[in-house]
Amino acid sequence: MTATTGDSIAATGQVTVLGLGDMGSAIARTFVERGYRTTVWNRTASKSAPLVDAGAIAAATAAEAVAASPLVVVCLLDGAAVDEVLASVDAAVAGKVLVNLTSGSPARARANERWANERGADYLDGKLMGDPPYIGTPNIMIPISGSGSAWAAHEPALKALGSVAYHGADAGLAAVEFMAQVAVSYELLIGYLHTLRLVQAEGVDVVQFAERVAGSIPAYPPLLTSMARAVKSGDHQPDLGSLNVQAALMNDMISHRESVGVEAMRMREVKQLMDRRIADGHGEQGFSSLFELLTKHSLS
Amino acid sequence: MTATTGDSIAATGQVTVLGLGDMGSAIARTFVERGYRTTVWNRTASKSAPLVDAGAIAAATAAEAVAASPLVVVCLLDGAAVDEVLASVDAAVAGKVLVNLTSGSPARARANERWANERGADYLDGKLMGDPPYIGTPNIMIPISGSGSAWAAHEPALKALGSVAYHGADAGLAAVEFMAQVAVSYELLIGYLHTLRLVQAEGVDVVQFAERVAGSIPAYPPLLTSMARAVKSGDHQPDLGSLNVQAALMNDMISHRESVGVEAMRMREVKQLMDRRIADGHGEQGFSSLFELLTKHSLS
Ligand SMILES: NC(=O)c1ccc[n+]([C@@H]2O[C@H](COP(=O)([O-])OP(=O)(O)OC[C@H]3O[C@@H](n4cnc5c(N)ncnc54)[C@H](OP(=O)(O)O)[C@@H]3O)[C@@H](O)[C@H]2O)c1
Ligand SMILES: NC(=O)c1ccc[n+]([C@@H]2O[C@H](COP(=O)([O-])OP(=O)(O)OC[C@H]3O[C@@H](n4cnc5c(N)ncnc54)[C@H](OP(=O)(O)O)[C@@H]3O)[C@@H](O)[C@H]2O)c1
Repeated sequence: MTATTGDSIAATGQVTVLGLGDMGSAIARTFVERGYRTTVWNRTASKSAPLVDAGAIAAATAAEAVAASPLVVVCLLDGAAVDEVLASVDAAVAGKVLVNLTSGSPARARANERWANERGADYLDGKLMGDPPYIGTPNIMIPISGSGSAWAAHEPALKALGSVAYHGADAGLAAVEFMAQVAVSYELLIGYLHTLRLVQAEGVDVVQFAERVAGSIPAYPPLLTSMARAVKSGDHQPDLGSLNVQAALMNDMISHRESVGVEAMRMREVKQLMDRRIADGHGEQGFSSLFELLTKHSLS
Repeated sequence: MTATTGDSIAATGQVTVLGLGDMGSAIARTFVERGYRTTVWNRTASKSAPLVDAGAIAAATAAEAVAASPLVVVCLLDGAAVDEVLASVDAAVAGKVLVNLTSGSPARARANERWANERGADYLDGKLMGDPPYIGTPNIMIPISGSGSAWAAHEPALKALGSVAYHGADAGLAAVEFMAQVAVSYELLIGYLHTLRLVQAEGVDVVQFAERVAGSIPAYPPLLTSMARAVKSGDHQPDLGSLNVQAALMNDMISHRESVGVEAMRMREVKQLMDRRIADGHGEQGFSSLFELLTKHSLS
């Protein structure tokens, strides 16, 4: 090893990546390109070849890979895969910082943190919100949470991967952010697909309809933040009009959906919540006030 | 009546407005301001006073108001109110163009059109997508549908009210657009409120979370239009990743929601639809392919 290489390593550091699927490979490649001495491991060993060509070092076992660097990034299919791989590196993790970027729940993140701490390792949990080609660009959001000292030590390396934000010391918070953002996305998109079915059943061109919906999207950011402010303060002014006016429409919406054979579950829920707020004397409040009823047993 | 007034009327026309609630009053005021000879009527007569002060003419009965103008705009609380008022003008509508801007279903619009045509009147149906203060500005969307000749004759008057678009000769199409747009909005917003409950239960500041969601909203317009194109063509490429990758996450999302007491109905539906597509051999397709399962009995 030449002095030059040594300097470069000292300046940028050493990192291990466990898991070379689409995401893990993009992560390892980014570290190599940024000058990190990058050690890689994958269950199916052949996937390390293109990374070795790019300048990474392939380890024969996951434990060997963990031993090679102070910072160990884990990116596997799911929590079960993480459990399996972590079990195999049990003896090698003391003194390391584990950063798990595998999708999963807050509970899994917190359990991983306990596992790491019991073995003398620090733990950070991160979630990848974007596609593999965006790794290394600002177009992928990566919430991170867990050990504050590990974050302080490795912030520059982690920030090489995308738009990284630290959410706090509770290791579950990155997963909370991820699940909440994905949920907003799925709620919008599944509702949207149902609505495409509805307009298609009425003979409307779905692409033209989509362009009109797309045109209305810029109105949402201020509405979403003002609704969150109403939720936080409990002061629910009319937003899309009052519940009294909004509720008058719901029966028509439900029967229209049913008449063209499109599922109306969510509209029925909204109607039920509106009716309850109105019955409780809150008909002059806005849509945001439905929040007050959203507890586990609200629809029982 | 002076010649000047006569010219002005000839240039801009005469219009009647039935219903002077928040919306009807804003509509009548806009017509007065644009120089239309505006006749108004409201069940509770006192509501016409401010409009008469502004230059409108109050009619004693709805039938008198209809008789005063070739163009009659109706804006009442709901379909039942429209039925009641139309019944009272039965003998006065022949030769008129009725434009109903009251919220309601496509079926009601089509029934109103039949009622009007049977009495020798033309019918247009429109829906108001925005708040009363936006009447007369481009910030309120007003889809219109129904008689093409009535639209051709009265397009300038109707365009005075907002961003007006003609959707076709089927009188129900404006209501389809309205219900579909409102549904997309409610699906997004009710899902969003559930998610605020989720992050709040995890100790996250809802307003800060809202700002992050708001920041992700600009990514939706291209996604919505590309999904509509996939739906139209039936060619469902991976969008948010493949269903195989997306489905791996759903159980975690569902159990996380349940663990903090937030309803997971929609997430369970998404999971079920993903599982069915994967079982049918479409796991490499994207989220848009769930559309193929969205028929009335898809979840039976
Ligand atoms: N792809 C995306 O668009 C995307 C977007 C956001 C987040 N994510 C998340 O990123 C993570 C990785 O996704 P990916 O796209 O890289 O997935 P992928 O391409 O399917 O790769 C999965 C990786 O997990 C490994 N693996 C699976 N089971 C294992 C086990 N039992 N033991 C050891 N290794 C195992 C695989 O090893 P083998 O090569 O040996 O099979 C492979 O390295 C997932 O949690 C995913 O949800 C992905
Ligand atoms: N306000 C909004 O933000 C908004 C937004 C979009 C769409 N819209 C739609 O616009 C329409 C009008 O809304 P609005 O805000 O103007 O409502 P509003 O202020 O509550 O006014 C309702 C109007 O309907 C009349 N009315 C009700 N029942 C009647 C009956 N049986 N016979 C005769 N007249 C009757 C009322 O007359 P009285 O004065 O005698 O009670 C009043 O003129 C509704 O379909 C609403 O969904 C409203």
